[in-house]
Amino acid sequence: MRTSTVVFLILLSSSAAFAQNKPQRSATRPAANPQASFSPQLMQELAAIRDAALADDYPYQQVAHLTENIGPRMAGSAQAQKAVEYVAEELRKLGLDVRLEEARVPHWVRGIEAGELVEYPGQGGGTSQKIVLTALGGSTATPLEGMNAEVVVANDFEQLKDLGREKVAGKIVLFNVPFDKQKAAGGLALDAYSEAVEYRGSGAKAASELGAVASLIRSVGGADFRLPHTGWSQAAGIPAGAVTAEDADLIAHLAAEGPVRMHLTLTPRRLPDITSYNVVADIRGSEHPEQVIIVSGHLDSWDLGTGAIDDAAGVAVAMETAHVLAQLHLRPKRTIRVIAWMDEENGGGGRDAYTKAHVLEFPNHIAALESDLGAAHPLGFDAKLNPTALDLLKPVQSILESFGANVIKITNYSPGADISNMAKAGVPAFGVKQDGRSYFNYHHTAADTLDKIIPRELRENAAAMAVMGYALAEMPQTLPR
Amino acid sequence: MRTSTVVFLILLSSSAAFAQNKPQRSATRPAANPQASFSPQLMQELAAIRDAALADDYPYQQVAHLTENIGPRMAGSAQAQKAVEYVAEELRKLGLDVRLEEARVPHWVRGIEAGELVEYPGQGGGTSQKIVLTALGGSTATPLEGMNAEVVVANDFEQLKDLGREKVAGKIVLFNVPFDKQKAAGGLALDAYSEAVEYRGSGAKAASELGAVASLIRSVGGADFRLPHTGWSQAAGIPAGAVTAEDADLIAHLAAEGPVRMHLTLTPRRLPDITSYNVVADIRGSEHPEQVIIVSGHLDSWDLGTGAIDDAAGVAVAMETAHVLAQLHLRPKRTIRVIAWMDEENGGGGRDAYTKAHVLEFPNHIAALESDLGAAHPLGFDAKLNPTALDLLKPVQSILESFGANVIKITNYSPGADISNMAKAGVPAFGVKQDGRSYFNYHHTAADTLDKIIPRELRENAAAMAVMGYALAEMPQTLPR
Repeated sequence: MRTSTVVFLILLSSSAAFAQNKPQRSATRPAANPQASFSPQLMQELAAIRDAALADDYPYQQVAHLTENIGPRMAGSAQAQKAVEYVAEELRKLGLDVRLEEARVPHWVRGIEAGELVEYPGQGGGTSQKIVLTALGGSTATPLEGMNAEVVVANDFEQLKDLGREKVAGKIVLFNVPFDKQKAAGGLALDAYSEAVEYRGSGAKAASELGAVASLIRSVGGADFRLPHTGWSQAAGIPAGAVTAEDADLIAHLAAEGPVRMHLTLTPRRLPDITSYNVVADIRGSEHPEQVIIVSGHLDSWDLGTGAIDDAAGVAVAMETAHVLAQLHLRPKRTIRVIAWMDEENGGGGRDAYTKAHVLEFPNHIAALESDLGAAHPLGFDAKLNPTALDLLKPVQSILESFGANVIKITNYSPGADISNMAKAGVPAFGVKQDGRSYFNYHHTAADTLDKIIPRELRENAAAMAVMGYALAEMPQTLPR
Repeated sequence: MRTSTVVFLILLSSSAAFAQNKPQRSATRPAANPQASFSPQLMQELAAIRDAALADDYPYQQVAHLTENIGPRMAGSAQAQKAVEYVAEELRKLGLDVRLEEARVPHWVRGIEAGELVEYPGQGGGTSQKIVLTALGGSTATPLEGMNAEVVVANDFEQLKDLGREKVAGKIVLFNVPFDKQKAAGGLALDAYSEAVEYRGSGAKAASELGAVASLIRSVGGADFRLPHTGWSQAAGIPAGAVTAEDADLIAHLAAEGPVRMHLTLTPRRLPDITSYNVVADIRGSEHPEQVIIVSGHLDSWDLGTGAIDDAAGVAVAMETAHVLAQLHLRPKRTIRVIAWMDEENGGGGRDAYTKAHVLEFPNHIAALESDLGAAHPLGFDAKLNPTALDLLKPVQSILESFGANVIKITNYSPGADISNMAKAGVPAFGVKQDGRSYFNYHHTAADTLDKIIPRELRENAAAMAVMGYALAEMPQTLPR
């Protein structure tokens, strides 16, 4: 057995003791590995935070308010503004020092969305096939009366290239790239997402470069309930949409039999950029106020659903760190900064504004945490950090172990879009690592609604973030970079 | 062990022998119970039909054509007409005597469908909540610009009555009656459906009688992907719609906190009734042409999806009886009549026209079969018949046993809407009894599409219907009434 394992087990048993409020002798002994030494008091506080968060309905109430009383919170919308004011007020009530930090964000407004196959093998006598689709964030508009063009299907970028300008110019391209459901079911949902979402991001650009008049993707998602999944796409000067998996199948089947023409109407508008806000709220550190630990989620959402799992849950979970510390009358030595980010979805305006305003302070940003993979049971954290930091975090893992949230998986990417600039600058970055198997069934759809949140699992996420956040604010050393 | 069980087991073993084309001595022995005696030749033919159907892609090709090349087949639509012509032509190709029998059907056309909460606890600063909904078949139209009214929520008819005219008049009523998912998961999907669908059928009428200006139901369905489920509702002179489960939750939650007002636009139109057709196609019986066994499904569908499981599958399964008999060069002694019914969904015009034209022949209708519960694995049949008929069907069960489709469950209702008048008149009525656990997830939604059909399971349904249909056409006796 390796030394580190022994230490881990010792700490594990001591933490279990704390969880039951029965300190044992072993818990007061200095840990064998000085790097991993949390004081008994800190261990007790962390266990208390965990237990309080696991019993606290506060984050669910926040998600309910954000989704039901406020609603979809697309950057630039009235709802987003209302959400900013609401979260700021809630955090003020908890005694935090709250600032609204300006961020310029796009003001993109969905319009008419209609697709109809008007020529295809079997068509005739006035028949047509309705296509269920939605516009992507980078879409320009068709004429109000729609456009009419043949559809060509490409299964990947290679096939598009093979088709070439001759077969693509003047056409609507459909990228028929399925989301790998098996991979997602096997716990690799993010991998499945990454593979398919590439076409959402840059499909329209690739199609437009070959003269396509519009670009459609097969929706990036894992369930077959004829739900289109929206999302960001690189602006390419052409209308860009996502059809449902079922409609992608339909078009691909018919196009294999003969020419298919679609009447496509998408009339989103990109209005002038607007000033919105990150909500930035500090629990000022008692000893090192200049050292900052960020706990965060993003406040904006897409407009189709009410943004419960993406990402009212993340904001609520971050707010719970403040709520539970207030409840337990705990003040951290370092500053804990709750951030509700604006515009994670359609450009990252909030992230960029924060970077601009705070980049000089990044060396004193001890860590940045974000929750943005839903609200299902947390397995622990994805973390972009110096692997030598892992030893220091073992006491935290021992606290999280009781509810199965003790994995820390080192990633080579930022485990959160809003904290990615910090991650790039070397700030240790943590993303709550939810069980993501069902996340992409609802992601960016109308079905991202409150009922998708399981209260117990949401509380587990809140507990994971609060414990990790407070530990980072209290631990003797900061993490190596 | 009871005698009948012994007979059943003997037949079971003999049928297994036939399935393997290795007749054994026992198979040629007269059955112990003379009532259950099918000739060895008939047993062999039934096994051959079963095996051919289980290997035949024909029904899947039919569903694919009906759903993808033709599309949604709402009674009165161009697609329904095209489907009538297509199925008639396909059955003519198989050598059947095909007639188009006139049926008057409603011509109902969906219009704009939009719902928006414009006042509710939390609303303000220009925010609103979009409500996802769809019109029901009996809905009248709101003004083109919509209507604006407070929503009152009733959890059942009792609560509506308690609210009374004072609280209902001038309001939009929402019947928030959940579909019992546990019941459906436990194999009682039809029971769950029956309980909830009552509100779809007569909710609008009950609401209108108390002065409501519109009626909404919680969609009758088992999955939570923000899909509205349409369907028939009794005309009540007011707009009638179905919101999704998620939207019902939202409205109910908000209404519990304070007044909720909705802007509702539903502009369906009921155009003049139209003449459509049942496709009626006979394989004329060689010995008793006047004795008829009906195998059927319904050709019309709702307009939101492409009607794959409801009920292109049923039509395709019925067509397969003709296809497999042609393939095997089998001509039945009694007439097998393939019917693709028109307008099962929005009033039953096809059923009623058939009844009017053929009621005098019902005494010679030996049995009527329909498949209208999707295309999942068949467990056997629901049957409204004289229980003493069960003994006669045991040989059929023994043939169906190899793929688990051998249940015959006596019901006290007609196991098929299109054959219900016949069932009332005493014609033995059989409905293919599919595993219905997921059926109501898709039923009457946009997600009822080809991908929901599992080819192997569709073939099992086709085999079940062909075996039962041919057995009824060939067995020595007819079933007691």
